Amino acid sequence: MKTADSLALRHDGRRLRILDQTLLPHREEWLEVPDPDAMVLHIRRLAVRGAPLIGVAAALSLATFAQDGAGPAELRLAAAHLRRARPTAVNLMWAMDRMGAILDGGRCKDDVVMAELIAEAEAIFVEDVALCEAMARQGLGLFGEGEAVLTHCNSGGLATAGIGTALGLIRRGFEAGRVTHVFVDETRPLLQGARLTAWELARLGIPHTLLTDSMAAILLREGRVQRVLLGADRVAANGDFANKVGTYGLAVQCRHHGVPFHPVAPWSTVDLACPGGDAIPIEQRDPAEVRGTWAAAGTPAFNPSFDVTPAHLVTSLVTDRGVFTAAELASGILSRPRLRPTP
Amino acid sequence: MKTADSLALRHDGRRLRILDQTLLPHREEWLEVPDPDAMVLHIRRLAVRGAPLIGVAAALSLATFAQDGAGPAELRLAAAHLRRARPTAVNLMWAMDRMGAILDGGRCKDDVVMAELIAEAEAIFVEDVALCEAMARQGLGLFGEGEAVLTHCNSGGLATAGIGTALGLIRRGFEAGRVTHVFVDETRPLLQGARLTAWELARLGIPHTLLTDSMAAILLREGRVQRVLLGADRVAANGDFANKVGTYGLAVQCRHHGVPFHPVAPWSTVDLACPGGDAIPIEQRDPAEVRGTWAAAGTPAFNPSFDVTPAHLVTSLVTDRGVFTAAELASGILSRPRLRPTP
Repeated sequence: MKTADSLALRHDGRRLRILDQTLLPHREEWLEVPDPDAMVLHIRRLAVRGAPLIGVAAALSLATFAQDGAGPAELRLAAAHLRRARPTAVNLMWAMDRMGAILDGGRCKDDVVMAELIAEAEAIFVEDVALCEAMARQGLGLFGEGEAVLTHCNSGGLATAGIGTALGLIRRGFEAGRVTHVFVDETRPLLQGARLTAWELARLGIPHTLLTDSMAAILLREGRVQRVLLGADRVAANGDFANKVGTYGLAVQCRHHGVPFHPVAPWSTVDLACPGGDAIPIEQRDPAEVRGTWAAAGTPAFNPSFDVTPAHLVTSLVTDRGVFTAAELASGILSRPRLRPTP
Repeated sequence: MKTADSLALRHDGRRLRILDQTLLPHREEWLEVPDPDAMVLHIRRLAVRGAPLIGVAAALSLATFAQDGAGPAELRLAAAHLRRARPTAVNLMWAMDRMGAILDGGRCKDDVVMAELIAEAEAIFVEDVALCEAMARQGLGLFGEGEAVLTHCNSGGLATAGIGTALGLIRRGFEAGRVTHVFVDETRPLLQGARLTAWELARLGIPHTLLTDSMAAILLREGRVQRVLLGADRVAANGDFANKVGTYGLAVQCRHHGVPFHPVAPWSTVDLACPGGDAIPIEQRDPAEVRGTWAAAGTPAFNPSFDVTPAHLVTSLVTDRGVFTAAELASGILSRPRLRPTP
């Protein structure tokens, strides 16, 4: 197996390691992932997170398991477990479907299957790096001169194998002199903005300001943010999309204040089998994440991990295959055959 | 001095004590406040908070200082310090102006001044209790049958000398069978919803659910909230008002989703000298409150403690002197003489 190296995922040819994102920004601890069951636990506890990255990580984990000698039955079971690790991001299902197609291909020799699984996982990794760059190329024209942008959650190098989705585009925008400042929603309850996005921006030397999610409306009202860009965990055929909880509220704020609002996602996030946002399953997580250490132990709490934003609130969706306006999304452009083949 | 007893403020006739709200809900610790300087610190660190309560606490603190033998010069200085403890809530300035008018009354005998200061502070306490009940009476007619409501920050017994402003109205609504459930925004950065409002609701046996501020939009979209009620720290003459950061964003969400939105505040919160929201000073607090323990130490952060909501986003403002619609606020009703005398 070839080596792979990204901000939060490394493969030395034999062993797969992950950067434990729950410990950032205070500790950078790399953990070896011995088998797919361990990867399932790391995905569930968000040590590995970000819709594209969990697809890549699951594929590499399965390929490593094959390299370590797992047989077809074990690999099928492991793929099924990985596929169910989290319910909302479709990239995970998409990656497992690609790996599963090889397992189901009916080849009789295990070593051929193993080689193909490894090649497929390597391809998923390399493609994700390229998709990030393609999204940034597609979206760069959106920026005017010297824009301040706002983002939510983390959609950067920690969420993908490459430079990121929305944060990758923002990074390329900064390098091109089009983006001058990034406002970062802290993103309660799990604080991916405060912990992860602020950490990435500091590493990249991009000026940024952290805020609580409830403060974004003030900046929009005061004209201090020219554009909101964020990731997506699943895009339905009609352009509705699921993303980290808080995204929908931000879309409403953008509409009220006339600020452009853009989800940025690779084609692997588009689920054409899903007609609209109502069909996207939303993960409900432990209420203890909302209670934290400060609310009384028995306090009932609501904790959907994601929310759904209807396509009509989207200014445009940035993908590696093009930038699509709300009108284009409403016309069903995502389902058109010309978009289907990899460019 | 008469005894006074409220959820977070007690006077036994000699000594003033406060419930340290920074330790709730885990510890209920009462602290003796020896003098006005100590009260200034407790107000600044939010051990005593809530626009009406800080006015009452400051007045009681000054009266206790007079009872302990402080002379007019010391009292004037103490009143000036208390007045500046926090800049946004106007109730504090209003209470200190009432106490200051006695100090400036030019009476020659110190013991007369002392008796008047004590009587005035007692009156401010008792009036606040009555104002809470008056707001609840005025607002009760807003509720339909079996409403679920949403609130932000804390506007209950911990924020006033009585049952509270918005939370007092919600409590009376629950007792009348009109309110069946309360959704509580956690209210980052200082989590007054999670720590204080959830604690009050649990004590009162009112069913409630805690959520992060970013989740409110989902509930509004799904029709699970019939009304949003919250406090106000200062209401300008045109009906614009300042309240805990996050209030403005919630007002925008209510407008988008067609959900009624009501600030609830006593007349002592109305500042007729302030023509509109732009003239309300907004306290900027330590960025460390936003960074918490999870963001990297050097991360720049934005931390306004309050935001301003324009009157046109208000469905109606509930006060002890009446309920005023956005149209009435726009017509300048708050400045009309008929509202000025205490009813």
